[in-house]
Amino acid sequence: MATTESGYDRDAVRAVLDRARAEGRDSLTAPEGKALADAYGIPVPGEALAHDADEAVSLAVELGLPVVAKIVSPDILHKTEAGGVEVGLSTPDEVAAAYARIVDNARAYNPEARIEGVQIQQMVGGGLEVLIGATTDPTFGKIVVFGLGGVLVEVLKDVAFRLAPVSTADALAQIGDIKAAQVLDGVRGGAAVDRDRLADLLVRLSDLVTDFPEIAEADLNPVFASADSAIAADLRFVLDFAPAEPPKRFTRDEILGAMNRIFKPRSIAIIGASNEQGKIGNSVIRNIVDGGYAGEVYPINPKADEVYGRTAYKSIGDVPGDVDVAVFAVPAKFVAATLDEAGRKGVAGAILIPSGFAETGEKELQDEVLAVARRHDVRILGPNIYGYYYTPEKLSATFCTPYDVAGGTALTSQSGGIGMAILGYSRSTRTGVSAIVGVGNKADIDEDDLLTFFGQDDNTNAIAMHLEDLKDGRAFVEAAREVVPHKPVIVLKAGRTSAGARAAGSHTGALAGDDKVYDDILRQAGVVRAPGLNELLEFGRALPVLPAPKGENVVIITGAGGSGVLLSDAVVDNGMSLYEIPPDLDEAFRAFIPPFGAAGNPVDITGGEPPSTYEKTIRLGLEDPRVHALILGYWHTIVTPPMVFAELVADVVAQARAAGIDKPVVASLSGDTEVEAASAHLFEHGVVAYPYTTEKPVQVLGAKYRWARAAGLL
Amino acid sequence: MATTESGYDRDAVRAVLDRARAEGRDSLTAPEGKALADAYGIPVPGEALAHDADEAVSLAVELGLPVVAKIVSPDILHKTEAGGVEVGLSTPDEVAAAYARIVDNARAYNPEARIEGVQIQQMVGGGLEVLIGATTDPTFGKIVVFGLGGVLVEVLKDVAFRLAPVSTADALAQIGDIKAAQVLDGVRGGAAVDRDRLADLLVRLSDLVTDFPEIAEADLNPVFASADSAIAADLRFVLDFAPAEPPKRFTRDEILGAMNRIFKPRSIAIIGASNEQGKIGNSVIRNIVDGGYAGEVYPINPKADEVYGRTAYKSIGDVPGDVDVAVFAVPAKFVAATLDEAGRKGVAGAILIPSGFAETGEKELQDEVLAVARRHDVRILGPNIYGYYYTPEKLSATFCTPYDVAGGTALTSQSGGIGMAILGYSRSTRTGVSAIVGVGNKADIDEDDLLTFFGQDDNTNAIAMHLEDLKDGRAFVEAAREVVPHKPVIVLKAGRTSAGARAAGSHTGALAGDDKVYDDILRQAGVVRAPGLNELLEFGRALPVLPAPKGENVVIITGAGGSGVLLSDAVVDNGMSLYEIPPDLDEAFRAFIPPFGAAGNPVDITGGEPPSTYEKTIRLGLEDPRVHALILGYWHTIVTPPMVFAELVADVVAQARAAGIDKPVVASLSGDTEVEAASAHLFEHGVVAYPYTTEKPVQVLGAKYRWARAAGLL
Repeated sequence: MATTESGYDRDAVRAVLDRARAEGRDSLTAPEGKALADAYGIPVPGEALAHDADEAVSLAVELGLPVVAKIVSPDILHKTEAGGVEVGLSTPDEVAAAYARIVDNARAYNPEARIEGVQIQQMVGGGLEVLIGATTDPTFGKIVVFGLGGVLVEVLKDVAFRLAPVSTADALAQIGDIKAAQVLDGVRGGAAVDRDRLADLLVRLSDLVTDFPEIAEADLNPVFASADSAIAADLRFVLDFAPAEPPKRFTRDEILGAMNRIFKPRSIAIIGASNEQGKIGNSVIRNIVDGGYAGEVYPINPKADEVYGRTAYKSIGDVPGDVDVAVFAVPAKFVAATLDEAGRKGVAGAILIPSGFAETGEKELQDEVLAVARRHDVRILGPNIYGYYYTPEKLSATFCTPYDVAGGTALTSQSGGIGMAILGYSRSTRTGVSAIVGVGNKADIDEDDLLTFFGQDDNTNAIAMHLEDLKDGRAFVEAAREVVPHKPVIVLKAGRTSAGARAAGSHTGALAGDDKVYDDILRQAGVVRAPGLNELLEFGRALPVLPAPKGENVVIITGAGGSGVLLSDAVVDNGMSLYEIPPDLDEAFRAFIPPFGAAGNPVDITGGEPPSTYEKTIRLGLEDPRVHALILGYWHTIVTPPMVFAELVADVVAQARAAGIDKPVVASLSGDTEVEAASAHLFEHGVVAYPYTTEKPVQVLGAKYRWARAAGLL
Repeated sequence: MATTESGYDRDAVRAVLDRARAEGRDSLTAPEGKALADAYGIPVPGEALAHDADEAVSLAVELGLPVVAKIVSPDILHKTEAGGVEVGLSTPDEVAAAYARIVDNARAYNPEARIEGVQIQQMVGGGLEVLIGATTDPTFGKIVVFGLGGVLVEVLKDVAFRLAPVSTADALAQIGDIKAAQVLDGVRGGAAVDRDRLADLLVRLSDLVTDFPEIAEADLNPVFASADSAIAADLRFVLDFAPAEPPKRFTRDEILGAMNRIFKPRSIAIIGASNEQGKIGNSVIRNIVDGGYAGEVYPINPKADEVYGRTAYKSIGDVPGDVDVAVFAVPAKFVAATLDEAGRKGVAGAILIPSGFAETGEKELQDEVLAVARRHDVRILGPNIYGYYYTPEKLSATFCTPYDVAGGTALTSQSGGIGMAILGYSRSTRTGVSAIVGVGNKADIDEDDLLTFFGQDDNTNAIAMHLEDLKDGRAFVEAAREVVPHKPVIVLKAGRTSAGARAAGSHTGALAGDDKVYDDILRQAGVVRAPGLNELLEFGRALPVLPAPKGENVVIITGAGGSGVLLSDAVVDNGMSLYEIPPDLDEAFRAFIPPFGAAGNPVDITGGEPPSTYEKTIRLGLEDPRVHALILGYWHTIVTPPMVFAELVADVVAQARAAGIDKPVVASLSGDTEVEAASAHLFEHGVVAYPYTTEKPVQVLGAKYRWARAAGLL
């Protein structure tokens, strides 16, 4: 037996799979499944194959009664449906009778079926039924699933996914991730199951499907788990010997080499630059020039000598110097030929604004363009995009209007409509942006390329992405894992629901994955998921403003008890908990507030208090090292008007920061319309503040916490 | 046996309860519980009381083996804990041995316990375990609960509540309300349980606790349910012979008599009106006069002859004419005496702005003031409030600033801070408001009084309420049920989470109910619950703008496929579903859109289309009678700029309305900052539109649908 250093007998698995492949089968029989389990150390019940009723009886006695009997036929996959399973056979007579019935049923079910015999299996049971499985996800490749077995969980769909292979720590986290995880610890006096054994099963199964990619699906269902065992009572394997080709991968150096030339180009050619107002080729050159881009700009237009004051060239090949980026503003049908010229010129990136490719059914034209790009080592952004912005270079390579509020947030969108919302929202809120990028049809450059670039880009400190699918989920996860320890990655995944997924399908032709798979795996990668468009924009705007929290102790200080209640609700909703303020700190807060102010957390300073009460309590919260984040609730009164509150909070926070105390502070402002200007003032001074909502500031703080936990800062 | 027309034997129950009361007990023994079940037709297993081991054996043989044996002692409530329960006794020997063990265990557990014997019970089982119970909620009184039994549901807490008594229809809805309801229909080939039998059990138990309020809690757990039976295998009753006094109720005529004088007063006295700027008594009279109130205004001030140009009186008793409302702007300690004078003057309402009552621990002072009011039949609003607004009378009886945008939304808040957010938000968005009311400590007037008034008020067509507790949940539900068929009732219940509830406790001293109870019972009353403050404000603003939908067929028409996906997600998230467009209508849409536009729903008209494409498709959606609601997704392009889109949509919708077609239309606008003005234009023209969010317009439409369903319009 050729076991490896991991204890796995890969040769045994190979032999079983080779036989199945030779026979043209896409599933395994129960004995073959057992062989795989044995080879990878997955515990299964004792069992043997009986060829007649007498043999069945003697095997049953040998294994120990009671037993289960199951038909063995390469032609019968659904054994129960075929009347091919009997359980709880406790006497030799019952075993003999069951053998006969099973074979008869199988013959009636499928007269053509080859019947190899009946498997006699030790009957296991008791303990808790769980499900452990593996499948091949179109986005993420091999994934493993864990859930409780049984009727209820089938209905409630309480399962957790992870990328395969999983480590033991991953597997333990996965097991703890199901909603009903408490059941594993024993309820109503039952004993806890051994989570380590279950984690071990997950690891072994995930190794098996990773080592043998042709295993498309594997179910261990049910697994009977108890305090001292975990046995897979039934196994099912589905094979696929012709899996889909994985997407092309680039190395980190290759990606950064291209991306640095694309985002920081020394020169840009505009293919189809035009003097005619209203044309895309006119908007693009105007935006690049008017936006303040300092590099060389080369209009390419066979019919003009000059475009927007710059010398025009018939072809990009005629440009005297090097060209880093070519922006295409010509109809789809001219792209392949002009891209070939750009490739020969040695451009790093082709920005394909034109539509009329895969999104309108012209998949072949898109493939042809991609083939041209690959031939010349040119990376493509698009097609079917509004272009891209990179504010550190004052670069607005787009037909939309320029954007000039520089800052730390990089935003990307798969859809042009969402890109326009990003632009409008950013402008309206004066969000500091490093980049806005449309990825459109993602013929080539996709989110993992952009993550790799923005992850190491000193001008970017948060990345917010709208996406409808991932071309290569595994590459995205790898890129995200690199970035998350350094800066937040926020993702709005559209097509969460099956209705949304159907709409996504018709939009991009992309296969939308099951949302629970995305949810679990993006979380595992440390991504902060935005539930909707507004949150994507809001998190993108606010997360770079807030410092990272250094602990979990959140304190609410509020002038309105009513806001305190709503803020407390929001704290729980967003995965945080209120710090139980210790007596000495409670007493210190109480010294500043009226005697009827509420004890504990929220600190309710009550409504009619002067600015000094806000100031003293907030300063105390900032200076006490046991407090890690502050949520402020402001109530508009004549005694402390909104801008007075905003200025005093900004001052107290600035003083603390000057003293080296850098805690996240968010605020909810309740009051008349003056609270809008007060909120804006606070935001500009590093306090994330909103009027007329108790939910939004806490949601943003919750997102910052989710990131900080994923980044390993807490 | 004195059975009534309902078949219930109330005398039998009365006898059991009287005995328990006489013995000073707060629980029932198993045989007593069985007597109650028998009296109300609740099926239980056959059983009898054995006084020694021999009797136990003969009873067991008579009832049929296997049996369960349980200790019977008025002093042992937790029988399992006492080692007083043995199950699955299949032979006479086992029964005899179990009898001895149970009695020994009980003696060891509590040597003082009076042991009446051992109950021998037919062992039932199989089928599905469910839980049926009743309890006395501090807010809502008697409520019934339904859930699946067993470990998983205990962990996942999948239960549904209803007010008792329930009708059979209520009970069936309650049963269908649990998340895992599918389990009741049989899964994995199991038979469906008989829901009618379970509903019958709920009805009988709810009748029992309604008829006998001293039954504080009742558990039928487990109930074994199958296709042809539902048997309560264990019963538990807890008694309370000294329940809390129910809150005072007023008749509808009494409420409306007072409320009409309060909201439409012919004259108002301001107790503590002052000429001194910055004083509350000054702000109040200025706001009433400057706000444009046309009735008589009487300042009351012992030290002034004139206040703000009006003749002042030393006491309200000196006022020459009748007074409908007295607004109090004096310190808490002067309220009781001045209220007594106001009561003698015959005012209908006392608006108690002052704080310093229950919210600062001065509960006795508040009770004293209430007693004065009750003596004179004066209704109190407050204390501890900002006052109230009623725009149809141009009445701003508050120390905040006046509000003058008249419209159909009435808003109330329990907290002053939230009231200020209501004011600022309304002003900022120009929300049309009929009333804004602070209820504060709710010493007297509360949400059900206000619901009763606004429900019949022709100036109000939607009611939005912030509340932290309900003084009388049952009165609120009754009032809401009257109103909901005519206009939406929107509720933000603060203190949803246990952290929030704790904060609520410290704020108002109110006992916060379990949120699931609130959630189920408010939904049962047809209330639209707002998840947060922003939604309360947004629903309050938008619901009156939208016409009621006449069916469930929702269609998305979008210029941005990316928005279409997000809008589809939002449709599912908000409890609606996308209409499956029939082929003829699909073809009609296709005639207007490019060939690569997406089929079905969303109708994706694609990005670069002119205004006429939006216009034709939206008109088609409005005119086709199979479509009941439209969600529009706009993508900012040069071809169809934002305001062009907004004006054309407003026109098409106005034309349809002129032709008698009144469907709800909402819109999500993606684009540069011009979409903000376009959204405002649409809102003013009856289309609920928002920039930079795909979630909010759909959430509002979903709220309108929830109301329309509750109102019985669909």
